Amino acid sequence: MAAAVALGEAARGSTAPNPNVGCVIVSPAGDIVGRGATAPGGRPHAEAVALAEAGNAARGSTVYVTLEPCAHASERGPRCSDLLADARPERVVVALKDPDPRTAGKGIERLRSAGIAVTTGTGRKAATASLSGYLTRLRLGRPRITLKLALSIDGKIALPSGESQWITGEDAGRHVHLERARADMILVGRGTYLADAPRLDVRLPGLEERSPRRALLTRGDAVDGWEILANPQDVYRLHDVNDLLVEGGSATATAFLSEDLVDRILIYRAPIIVGEGKSSFGYVGLDVIADAHGRWRPADEQRLGIDRLEVYERVRSA
Amino acid sequence: MAAAVALGEAARGSTAPNPNVGCVIVSPAGDIVGRGATAPGGRPHAEAVALAEAGNAARGSTVYVTLEPCAHASERGPRCSDLLADARPERVVVALKDPDPRTAGKGIERLRSAGIAVTTGTGRKAATASLSGYLTRLRLGRPRITLKLALSIDGKIALPSGESQWITGEDAGRHVHLERARADMILVGRGTYLADAPRLDVRLPGLEERSPRRALLTRGDAVDGWEILANPQDVYRLHDVNDLLVEGGSATATAFLSEDLVDRILIYRAPIIVGEGKSSFGYVGLDVIADAHGRWRPADEQRLGIDRLEVYERVRSA
Repeated sequence: MAAAVALGEAARGSTAPNPNVGCVIVSPAGDIVGRGATAPGGRPHAEAVALAEAGNAARGSTVYVTLEPCAHASERGPRCSDLLADARPERVVVALKDPDPRTAGKGIERLRSAGIAVTTGTGRKAATASLSGYLTRLRLGRPRITLKLALSIDGKIALPSGESQWITGEDAGRHVHLERARADMILVGRGTYLADAPRLDVRLPGLEERSPRRALLTRGDAVDGWEILANPQDVYRLHDVNDLLVEGGSATATAFLSEDLVDRILIYRAPIIVGEGKSSFGYVGLDVIADAHGRWRPADEQRLGIDRLEVYERVRSA
Repeated sequence: MAAAVALGEAARGSTAPNPNVGCVIVSPAGDIVGRGATAPGGRPHAEAVALAEAGNAARGSTVYVTLEPCAHASERGPRCSDLLADARPERVVVALKDPDPRTAGKGIERLRSAGIAVTTGTGRKAATASLSGYLTRLRLGRPRITLKLALSIDGKIALPSGESQWITGEDAGRHVHLERARADMILVGRGTYLADAPRLDVRLPGLEERSPRRALLTRGDAVDGWEILANPQDVYRLHDVNDLLVEGGSATATAFLSEDLVDRILIYRAPIIVGEGKSSFGYVGLDVIADAHGRWRPADEQRLGIDRLEVYERVRSA
């Protein structure tokens, strides 16, 4: 299942509105005979790709797939649960049930009624993390929103003059590009657009084609090549975006935080002190320190050259 | 030598102006027969304590000591190099030569001329870290200065109202008390004094007696029980302080940073966002981002409950 999750994760940011599913088919002898991930744009699905590779070798095999095979008809392709039923694997191991009401258990039923053994829950945690954009969209009706900032030790994003290049170094920069490749859309405010527009793409070898759609948070005029959100609540209209990366600046970040529309924060922290300068955020609705606690949990951290990435995730009651 | 360093480290903050030396005496059979650290107030020295424990067992032993045994006369006690020469160990292993010009190699010469083998450099790095307060004072003529702050993700120390209790949690609080026990003196500004004076002591079981001397950075009136520094440069008058802990607030921290009088920064970082609030520092003399780089290196980090401690050390050219 780890291999299936890795395949799905590599497709993240390129499959919306479909989930970035991964699929691996293993022969009775233990050989991998098929591999697949949701293709760019969402079709074909991971199972279809993996079954096409496996051909007749799928018969009697074990199929590992990160999300329940779809059971709903679409003019864009066949139902994966039908494809699998026809391929006659011995067993299908599903990490997660699909919360999409059009499938939601029907895919598994379809397989079982065809006499195929189905196991669920294997690799659930890793699959949930990898599919978190899609799962957030289905649960909350909006993309999973990641806020990214490059900060000094003392939480500044720029000097009073606005100078912010460069807070962080090259390794952090490369990681940002990887995060962009994993997003379906990036969003900035007008100030960041004016200062940085040419830079807001993916410049990593092999991933140049993975630059996400670009959006501007503004009440002002449309800009060629950019989608417009007049306010943060417009994220509820983004039905074809699983992962949204908000890249700032401070006013944009503050607006999203104020409306509690951030699921994850990436802090690229440089070991520098700025002192007087531009703060990360303005007023986010906090009036007592006690109310600030319990909202964010440290989820991950890693060193990126001299800098460090801190990842925080929003704590939500289940 | 690790055991000697640990003994010396445990005495840190209680021995100034003397160094917090550690000493272990090992018999030819490999048993530890003597243990010592510089006593509170600086006398007796670590070697004298360890030799007193070892008694005749010191003969033929190996003595591990974190700093070169002293060679200078004092009315407060005997020369350790003489004590060791009299005790007739087989060998003395010294981590660091004493930069104090009154010893500076003379202690090692004294031992060698008495026919005792002397090795130097073992455990040098750990001993340098443990004796960094003393070494800084001898090299720079002032204490080693540690700046401590409790910050949010976005680098705030308080709400606009000044409310700062509590940014960080209990584990971080206990670590602060440990750092206080390791300091000879803590210093705060008047605002922090007025808000927090009763708290500025060590409240850890067994370490209550280790509360450091307290100093106030102020041009105003003296306060009973507190020493006064009119400005940061007055640290050059603190001849009996090895380790100084500056606990804030923002104006005090900014004053020390502006004069480049900080050797080490402890950031106790809570996973909270404050937004609009009081920044860690004011103007510290930075006018271009590029000039901020290369001054601080991440030296250590650890998780303290939900919070994280980030340790930065000033990069100095040798």
